[in-house]
Amino acid sequence: MIADKIKLKIRGIVGEGNVLDSELDRFVYSYDSSFVPLLPANNPELVVRPLTTEEVSRVMAVACEEGIPVTPRGAASGRTGGSVPLQGGISLALDRMTQIVELDEKNMMVTAEAGVRTFDLYNHCAARGLFYPPDPASWKFSTIGGNVAENAGGMRAVKYGVTSDYVMGLEVVLADGAILQTGGKAIKNVTGYDLKGLFTGSEGTLGIITRALLRLIPMPKRRGTLQIMFGALDEGCATVYQLLQAGILPAAAEIMDRFCLEAVARRQRTDLAENTGACLIIEIDGEDDGDISTQTKRIETHARDCGATSFQAAGSAEESDGLWAIRRGLSSAVAALAPDRIGEDISVPRDAFPEVVRRIGIIAEKYGLAIAVYGHAGDGNLHPSILCDLGNPEEAKKVHQAVDEIFAAALALGGTLSGEHGIGITKRPYIAQALGETGLKTMKAIKQALDPKGILNPGKIWRGNEIHAQDR
Amino acid sequence: MIADKIKLKIRGIVGEGNVLDSELDRFVYSYDSSFVPLLPANNPELVVRPLTTEEVSRVMAVACEEGIPVTPRGAASGRTGGSVPLQGGISLALDRMTQIVELDEKNMMVTAEAGVRTFDLYNHCAARGLFYPPDPASWKFSTIGGNVAENAGGMRAVKYGVTSDYVMGLEVVLADGAILQTGGKAIKNVTGYDLKGLFTGSEGTLGIITRALLRLIPMPKRRGTLQIMFGALDEGCATVYQLLQAGILPAAAEIMDRFCLEAVARRQRTDLAENTGACLIIEIDGEDDGDISTQTKRIETHARDCGATSFQAAGSAEESDGLWAIRRGLSSAVAALAPDRIGEDISVPRDAFPEVVRRIGIIAEKYGLAIAVYGHAGDGNLHPSILCDLGNPEEAKKVHQAVDEIFAAALALGGTLSGEHGIGITKRPYIAQALGETGLKTMKAIKQALDPKGILNPGKIWRGNEIHAQDR
Repeated sequence: MIADKIKLKIRGIVGEGNVLDSELDRFVYSYDSSFVPLLPANNPELVVRPLTTEEVSRVMAVACEEGIPVTPRGAASGRTGGSVPLQGGISLALDRMTQIVELDEKNMMVTAEAGVRTFDLYNHCAARGLFYPPDPASWKFSTIGGNVAENAGGMRAVKYGVTSDYVMGLEVVLADGAILQTGGKAIKNVTGYDLKGLFTGSEGTLGIITRALLRLIPMPKRRGTLQIMFGALDEGCATVYQLLQAGILPAAAEIMDRFCLEAVARRQRTDLAENTGACLIIEIDGEDDGDISTQTKRIETHARDCGATSFQAAGSAEESDGLWAIRRGLSSAVAALAPDRIGEDISVPRDAFPEVVRRIGIIAEKYGLAIAVYGHAGDGNLHPSILCDLGNPEEAKKVHQAVDEIFAAALALGGTLSGEHGIGITKRPYIAQALGETGLKTMKAIKQALDPKGILNPGKIWRGNEIHAQDR
Repeated sequence: MIADKIKLKIRGIVGEGNVLDSELDRFVYSYDSSFVPLLPANNPELVVRPLTTEEVSRVMAVACEEGIPVTPRGAASGRTGGSVPLQGGISLALDRMTQIVELDEKNMMVTAEAGVRTFDLYNHCAARGLFYPPDPASWKFSTIGGNVAENAGGMRAVKYGVTSDYVMGLEVVLADGAILQTGGKAIKNVTGYDLKGLFTGSEGTLGIITRALLRLIPMPKRRGTLQIMFGALDEGCATVYQLLQAGILPAAAEIMDRFCLEAVARRQRTDLAENTGACLIIEIDGEDDGDISTQTKRIETHARDCGATSFQAAGSAEESDGLWAIRRGLSSAVAALAPDRIGEDISVPRDAFPEVVRRIGIIAEKYGLAIAVYGHAGDGNLHPSILCDLGNPEEAKKVHQAVDEIFAAALALGGTLSGEHGIGITKRPYIAQALGETGLKTMKAIKQALDPKGILNPGKIWRGNEIHAQDR
């Protein structure tokens, strides 16, 4: 319990109106976009909404002194429970820190506070011809702080990489309230350990990211969209490998299996050809129309070579929207098929994509579950979606077993538990298996070194990562 | 002192012939390619040359148990003293670990032991049409383990990034001998903290890198070389910024000032036009001849726009060699001008390149020193070379003061102490200034967590990083 005089102190730091503790507010800050069950135990005692890094620092100093758990929160769009306050304490909402501090056009870098929405940042830079590529599915509402904390990916990762590929520097408030500035505008920098890399993807367990310096690139001048149908998923995957081997980098390469296509066709009331087993949507970009047309021709050659049954290239922005409609409508079409949808996020070596899909098919059959498969074929990251009714305890048990086996399959193929969603709460049970004893021990040593009282986002990434009772 | 029975134990692990302790051998392993003075105190007590990760692990277990300092060593081509055994103990030479373990063409990745030479790795991959881009100047003799430990850069960094951009996974032997496997072939991976990023560039102070999994890209099919002369260095820099802003990414963009050009002209007995103030050598690559010619035309337009006085494009491999001759002959031509050459390695935000060069000119004038300036204009990384006679104590003092001021200038402009050489011994005095108190404290906490006895490469990166006497 946070004593009243401590609450008073915190109100003094951020202002009366920025500390919430009504029952409703506490409930509202107890969940995110994951399937972590709604539990009163996950209600924060206090929601604190600082405006400046200085305020975050002062709040952390109090929390450290008093041993109060602090769970940072951006837009709560995370899929693994990262912003759920597992041990109560403070929910530190960074949604008021929305300044785009500087757009440095000469160095092609932007500095943004943690609470800036990714899409707003994108638009701000795009207006000056500069491109911030990371585009997690949530980018219209997720925030830069959350994107950095989770090392968010997205569809453009195949060509442009993930959030960590753009982080040049960070401002981080450490567990004791100290403010760390790390990295900077020098492109090559080997001065000491790569702390910005360590904090990126650390899921709020090592520090509170308050500000990020992000690299930008020139905005591509032309875009093109291709929709390619195949008789089988393997043929679509094979096309993507051939392209990458040939040095053709699509800006996005999204693949969907027949199950997905049927769901979309039903919902959008369109027809699906009998012989269609998979659909590949490819986005390309380049300098001019000639560049787009050269890429289109080369991609068509590879796709036909791999057995494409149809190949369509958009001739206009409207046609591009039309070709993307399948992928854009996918999530809601699939979700409509059952009361619940467990969307997973595994990542395997590129060449293991068809094999992991095959194994997921076997798991679906074994448990009598419907599993839709789609994902980012270009980087081996896929999102099997289990359609189910978690209200049915029998089925819930089967779903959990199927999830276990999907993770095991990914690991067995040299893959990993999470491509872009993080570990949070939901994947904790599998972390030891994924990292091995030495890997986990090393991470625990780092956590202990940077947050000795364990107050930062306790309980996340691995079990036993909770705050120690004696410290409270 | 290492007791005889411990030496015996180590000989038992790696074999009699792979433990050296003659006076000559100890001297030979006491220095690297930096200007760290030759001191008997830097002689290792024992040189140990393991063949396998298992042997490294067993040696580390003994060293940890006995509190023996261990300094890892690749080709000792480092420029900041990284492999100099500052506290004696064991020089752990990884030069027998030369296996390229696997070239995975489908996933475009290669696994190599620490002792593989970078150039050998490059050639091995190139033979299969795959490209490992990082090319530190030392790449013909430096090793992958050293490249990863120092996060080596190179000329191709402007387009292709540095070593850390290619590290997908690492095998690291920790201070206590435990073997850590981190990362893997999954391209998107957010399972726990980014340990591979933490070990990359850690200069052997956190663990012994024994094996690296490296990402490859398709080998560009065509190359082109351009040599562009300008009246002033600023014009060359301006050209590079314009190119980058326009989305034209040269594979290399090397710039040299008039001082450098005069040294090369004198040595190569060529003429240098009166009005030439700087030379920019640009390498481009692409898919076909059309691509190269388009890039060439666009670059010429930007260069002329910025005031280029001459523009030459190579029409053949021989012509390309001819155009590169200035840059290739630079190091020896400059070195021949004085008994000693202190080659520094600072990095600034791209747009501060001309300003830092201007400030270096003022420093040179102030101390009456000759300083040649050249560097990687595309990424703000430059190598001011002070030509001097360190045998003259008066001059040596001036040189040290000038170096201090060069670092101060880089930091004042938002830059950093080292772009690609690391901190090692030579830049320790400046690290606190560069990182700030919180930054340094954070790094010390990580070091303490992963190497509590301080046996790994003691004395590097910051002062006070030595092994504690009571632990020995």
